[in-house]
Amino acid sequence: MSETSGVFRASGVVTFTTDFGLKDPFVGVLKGQVLLRFPQARLVDLTHEIEAHWPASAGFWLARSFRYFPAGTVHVAVVDPGVGSARAIAAVEAEGHAFLAPDNGLLAPVLESAQAPVSRRVSDEVLRRIGVGVVSATFHGRDIFAPLAAEMAAGRLAPADLGAVVGDLVPGWLDEPVVAAGQVTGSVVTIDHFGNLITNLEARHVRRHRCGSLVTRCRCGAPTPTCGPGSTSRWSIPSG
Amino acid sequence: MSETSGVFRASGVVTFTTDFGLKDPFVGVLKGQVLLRFPQARLVDLTHEIEAHWPASAGFWLARSFRYFPAGTVHVAVVDPGVGSARAIAAVEAEGHAFLAPDNGLLAPVLESAQAPVSRRVSDEVLRRIGVGVVSATFHGRDIFAPLAAEMAAGRLAPADLGAVVGDLVPGWLDEPVVAAGQVTGSVVTIDHFGNLITNLEARHVRRHRCGSLVTRCRCGAPTPTCGPGSTSRWSIPSG
Amino acid sequence: MSETSGVFRASGVVTFTTDFGLKDPFVGVLKGQVLLRFPQARLVDLTHEIEAHWPASAGFWLARSFRYFPAGTVHVAVVDPGVGSARAIAAVEAEGHAFLAPDNGLLAPVLESAQAPVSRRVSDEVLRRIGVGVVSATFHGRDIFAPLAAEMAAGRLAPADLGAVVGDLVPGWLDEPVVAAGQVTGSVVTIDHFGNLITNLEARHVRRHRCGSLVTRCRCGAPTPTCGPGSTSRWSIPSG
Repeated sequence: MSETSGVFRASGVVTFTTDFGLKDPFVGVLKGQVLLRFPQARLVDLTHEIEAHWPASAGFWLARSFRYFPAGTVHVAVVDPGVGSARAIAAVEAEGHAFLAPDNGLLAPVLESAQAPVSRRVSDEVLRRIGVGVVSATFHGRDIFAPLAAEMAAGRLAPADLGAVVGDLVPGWLDEPVVAAGQVTGSVVTIDHFGNLITNLEARHVRRHRCGSLVTRCRCGAPTPTCGPGSTSRWSIPSG
Repeated sequence: MSETSGVFRASGVVTFTTDFGLKDPFVGVLKGQVLLRFPQARLVDLTHEIEAHWPASAGFWLARSFRYFPAGTVHVAVVDPGVGSARAIAAVEAEGHAFLAPDNGLLAPVLESAQAPVSRRVSDEVLRRIGVGVVSATFHGRDIFAPLAAEMAAGRLAPADLGAVVGDLVPGWLDEPVVAAGQVTGSVVTIDHFGNLITNLEARHVRRHRCGSLVTRCRCGAPTPTCGPGSTSRWSIPSG
Repeated sequence: MSETSGVFRASGVVTFTTDFGLKDPFVGVLKGQVLLRFPQARLVDLTHEIEAHWPASAGFWLARSFRYFPAGTVHVAVVDPGVGSARAIAAVEAEGHAFLAPDNGLLAPVLESAQAPVSRRVSDEVLRRIGVGVVSATFHGRDIFAPLAAEMAAGRLAPADLGAVVGDLVPGWLDEPVVAAGQVTGSVVTIDHFGNLITNLEARHVRRHRCGSLVTRCRCGAPTPTCGPGSTSRWSIPSG
């Protein structure tokens, strides 16, 4: 990678990750608001089936997905239990990509895995400058995130324009895995389409345990209440 | 808004609202038929999870969503219990947007909420002119709506080309809310992704009642048969 | 159709048919990988709700849908029980369209219904040439199919570049319908969004039977285990 690989240069691509579901028109409305400001935007859904109000899953998938998109992509993630409160909007620039999300820990997995990420909080001044005025209490995706993403994807707003660099975004939702003699402890992040429980354990965590990387995905008959994504319950890997 | 704000000028954007679901290839086929005629179209899903054969919900969301899209957008809504019968195709032009739907009451909420809407029924002659010949009995979305939307989004067909202005589209599916002393009566339109019952009551209907605008959305444990969207049952807001 | 109608000339459109579902970011990642190589691609989902590991349904819908897309479309179908094994990648060119899928019988319905299809297996050499190196054992959609589709949609890779013509792709999953006196036997392929059982029987199979084409779709109260898509169980049409 060149020395400037970390700098965001807009590619015109915007991805969306939300817990809005596809039953209602909310995702479509987000896209309408982007196209209103930037008709040439190319819009890609990452997923809209994040568990309601569970930012950990959104950040988990985003951190594992963003590198498959062109550099210069704006990744918008809105899983926002605190919508309408005073929580800030976080912007991260990393490896040539830009990320926008509520400052609620959602982006923590991106910060952990990306090289040399730079974090900012979006200033009220920049929102005023792009004409975001009175916003709803319940739909910041439409009223704030979509306009911001459009301006960035169009190359009219750079990460450095968004606000001052900060070092203290809200921390993530999951404890780091704990590796001990004969036991590795991690968290179930989500359940995928095929019924696999997806955890935050990686191959390196179980390298020295007998059952190896296979158990980082546990295929269950049916999810039980204790391993649902909302409970962040732990399960232990039996090893010798 | 300027004096000509109501005139439709194609932006190239097409939105889709249907009850087709996403399990089958029907939505994809609609888009293929648009791209066949207008490769530059930008296609946005509003939702495909409208309750089967319940146009009220499609019109409800469309009326509340269309203004978030660029002027010049063509909004296609196909929830069509009468497909294959002699029902006409309705076209509405309002606030610079164009709407295409079966003439079955679906567009009534748009007519109620939009400024100076103009309604037409699509003539057989215009269908012949754009090369829509023999059509299937079951898939007018593909055979009629997609070609029409493509021609309009491409700017080759204006609302005025579609047919004569009419004043009598089929009326909507929902009774208007009734505001009485101590009681407001409305209809449940749909249940959203988060489990909220969505009604056609607005803040103005409950302005003078004690519980205020909060109750225009009722969060239930589980939907009961009496408040499903197909039953258009009423519930009363207890107020003092 | 002209004499050259069977030749693939890239239109820039790519369709996707998978069993990935929409809960996880896998479909989005596929699209990111296409846009990375060909930013002008126009991407259309056919469906991502194919029953897990049931290629028959993917091929069935693809064969019935592809003609509604512009000639020059690349159709990518990934339902791949054998991912990670030595199974080849099949490429079919037919009626001006290109198809990419695992060589597991998925494309058999396309071969049966299309005029003058030409089949190939994708050579390792062409993968190396487009820079597809080490691939994962579990996600060939992202690592192989998306890059191939991007190169073809961009017009940089023609069907003839993919490999030698072959005459023996893996056969399809469904038995041909059997028409006998008083009985027609077919297979249930899938259950659609509206609850219809979809079979591989067509009007021509029941032409001489009393109940006619109506029974090629059987509306059931609830699907029973014996007619699930994975079982390929048969049902008989009662006729006189």
